[in-house]
Amino acid sequence: MARKTSLSGFPEWLPEERLVELHVLDVLRETFELHGFSSIETRAVETVGQLLRKGEIDKEVYVVSRLQEDEDAPEKDDARLALHFDLTVPFARYVVENGGHLTFPFRRYQMQKVWRGERPQEGRAREFTQADIDVVGDGALPFRYDVELALVMIDALSKLPIPPFVLRVNNRKLAEGFYRGIGLQDTAGVLRNIDKLEKIGPEKVAQALCDELGASPEQARAALQLASIRTEDTSFVEQVRALGVNTQLLEEGLQELAEVVGEASRRAPGTVVADLSIARGLDYYTGTVYETVLVGHEQLGSVCSGGRYESLASTGKKTYPGVGLSVGVTRLVSRILSQGMAEASRKVPTAVLVSLVDEESWSQAQDVAGQLRARGVACEVSASAAKFGKQIRYAERRGIPFVWFTVRAEDGTLSHEVKDIRSGEQFSADPATWTPPAEDLRPVVRSAGA
Amino acid sequence: MARKTSLSGFPEWLPEERLVELHVLDVLRETFELHGFSSIETRAVETVGQLLRKGEIDKEVYVVSRLQEDEDAPEKDDARLALHFDLTVPFARYVVENGGHLTFPFRRYQMQKVWRGERPQEGRAREFTQADIDVVGDGALPFRYDVELALVMIDALSKLPIPPFVLRVNNRKLAEGFYRGIGLQDTAGVLRNIDKLEKIGPEKVAQALCDELGASPEQARAALQLASIRTEDTSFVEQVRALGVNTQLLEEGLQELAEVVGEASRRAPGTVVADLSIARGLDYYTGTVYETVLVGHEQLGSVCSGGRYESLASTGKKTYPGVGLSVGVTRLVSRILSQGMAEASRKVPTAVLVSLVDEESWSQAQDVAGQLRARGVACEVSASAAKFGKQIRYAERRGIPFVWFTVRAEDGTLSHEVKDIRSGEQFSADPATWTPPAEDLRPVVRSAGA
Repeated sequence: MARKTSLSGFPEWLPEERLVELHVLDVLRETFELHGFSSIETRAVETVGQLLRKGEIDKEVYVVSRLQEDEDAPEKDDARLALHFDLTVPFARYVVENGGHLTFPFRRYQMQKVWRGERPQEGRAREFTQADIDVVGDGALPFRYDVELALVMIDALSKLPIPPFVLRVNNRKLAEGFYRGIGLQDTAGVLRNIDKLEKIGPEKVAQALCDELGASPEQARAALQLASIRTEDTSFVEQVRALGVNTQLLEEGLQELAEVVGEASRRAPGTVVADLSIARGLDYYTGTVYETVLVGHEQLGSVCSGGRYESLASTGKKTYPGVGLSVGVTRLVSRILSQGMAEASRKVPTAVLVSLVDEESWSQAQDVAGQLRARGVACEVSASAAKFGKQIRYAERRGIPFVWFTVRAEDGTLSHEVKDIRSGEQFSADPATWTPPAEDLRPVVRSAGA
Repeated sequence: MARKTSLSGFPEWLPEERLVELHVLDVLRETFELHGFSSIETRAVETVGQLLRKGEIDKEVYVVSRLQEDEDAPEKDDARLALHFDLTVPFARYVVENGGHLTFPFRRYQMQKVWRGERPQEGRAREFTQADIDVVGDGALPFRYDVELALVMIDALSKLPIPPFVLRVNNRKLAEGFYRGIGLQDTAGVLRNIDKLEKIGPEKVAQALCDELGASPEQARAALQLASIRTEDTSFVEQVRALGVNTQLLEEGLQELAEVVGEASRRAPGTVVADLSIARGLDYYTGTVYETVLVGHEQLGSVCSGGRYESLASTGKKTYPGVGLSVGVTRLVSRILSQGMAEASRKVPTAVLVSLVDEESWSQAQDVAGQLRARGVACEVSASAAKFGKQIRYAERRGIPFVWFTVRAEDGTLSHEVKDIRSGEQFSADPATWTPPAEDLRPVVRSAGA
């Protein structure tokens, strides 16, 4: 991002950059719908009480209050409003509230802005767009959806103008079952430390496991051994078994992870890795966890993450278990733009500028434009009858490929010509039938390599 | 809106309702692009200082602050952040900041949520979506754009599943020139009172003009006479002249309004009215003002408003005059839904449910689904090999029109059949070529009358 924005952490795109973002959003929407996901949106605000259920995140929340709110009678914390920081917690609330109106398993996609009051840095904004898919069941949700959602995201990401990616998958049951099997009971604590592996390295993690959680050096070593396993197929199962730990939960986790990695690596070889170091920070995951890195851009962090949650959406009586994945659209688009991975074929939707011969011809030029638009050709009409050279330069500056000329002969008949201002070619054309070549009809976003 | 949402003023749609909203947004986007408008988005927050420049609106602003913000060192008011309450003020700020990167006249559309801390009531939400178009010039902007923007909006609104509408147009120069001509200098004060005409009636407005602004009964009567003029063509010009007032500003306003109404009523007869009572509350309008009502739903208020502003976007050195219109998407969609004006042909994007013969066939069913999706057919795969009757009922409940069956013969060959579960008709089909009838390919939003 060469251009500085006026508020750090709140990126805004120029029109030609926005075309790249729109392309990413359109591809995601199209793919999610092809897989049967319905669109919903939730309100931008939740109650603070609802948001803090998730824990660990209270520092990052933006609270919202009316400028003139009665300062003597502030709302209680539970009723205060704050901007959502992801789309999973709001979705869970939506499902609980609308359970009676939805058909389960409920498949939805949701593409919206979220806000986090974090310190802005490369790849980490305060306002950014996420694109989520989730499936939730009423009471139960077959494990198969954990496999399916990975496949949907692989399909979606494959269609974007981004480098090759790797979906890293792990399973909380596997990890927790293993830790319990070696005698570490604070499994959340172990996961929290394993999560720092990439940042601080194995020695410091081992030290922290011993210091903070009272692990023995052997226990710490075993936990790190597990976290070092990484395979592109289901061979991780044998590697874990070779560590000699055996619990029911571990076995369940091994089977689940093998099902995801086996099926995904069969259908999309090379895009999936069983990575037993993946922890994901969020408390609500209970089984499969996913994250995704762009090859060669691992430092950017995960661009698509998620997992299985058994009880995030729950009333007293009912539970709606779910599994979902979230694309970091802003993070992806920022990287696409800053590295020039893709760009739009032109800056504006307009394919044709309808020029004016004289000031009186404006309304007639609107008729021509109307005929073209009726066939899906985007056009603008010149606002004034400047010299043709000036009208052509205006089109050039805006990146409009064609200029339309209408001339009235002395007997009143109209003749039309259209000029491709890139080649200079000019030919007669009928506003009732002429269409630009397909590749010029709309701006197209192309990979830089393509 | 029969269903109650959990937070008053923050509407949320069910998936089938969201399809109607998406349809409205898609039609607007498509139309705006056909007219050469580029998409941009601005951040959800502005500084409070920026927002309050507009005046009169401070009560309605939602301030945003981090939950853990240092309470001893609160930000100064100018630097504090608040959610934007419209898209015009943020757009003006965007233009000033990015002036060097844009090509003028700059045409943009912007469809985003905005927030106002007002008392929620029918047609008035605290969070709602607006869809704006604006054109801004660098230093100057031909008046012709005031005509063009009205035409673009008439085109866009005509394509929506809503009742007939009337675009009411007035001109600030006309009104101000007239008030000055009859000796009323506080033209903003007069406008503010005229704005209440529909709500409190002419007697009370006349009273207020006399009491608050020191108008004589004759001046009040003249102001009300002007406000009572309403014509579907340019005959308002003669009616105003008949009132015997004559100023330069009034003459300019008459000419401008005649140009908008003349051209628009010629191109779209019956959709435009010169309505000299239209005031629009916002300080920044300087010429043309627009508002739009649905015929028979006048009480809903305006569903599309805007106007010309000469100096909203301005640095010390440069001014970017503009003209724009804003569609109240949430207000429109709420009314469409509550009155059943339109609905989606089905609830889900899915056209085909690919069923499972047995648990082992899931991966093979994914192959079939992949072939269908490659041709744009949205499908889901059953998550378990329940009895066919149960899988069909699942499709029925979700509104999926087709169920796909794959059977493996004893010699290993596969045969495929697809069932239209509405008619019960079942026929053999090839996953490599079969496509549903065009009207079943995607959910379609239709007017109730259609």
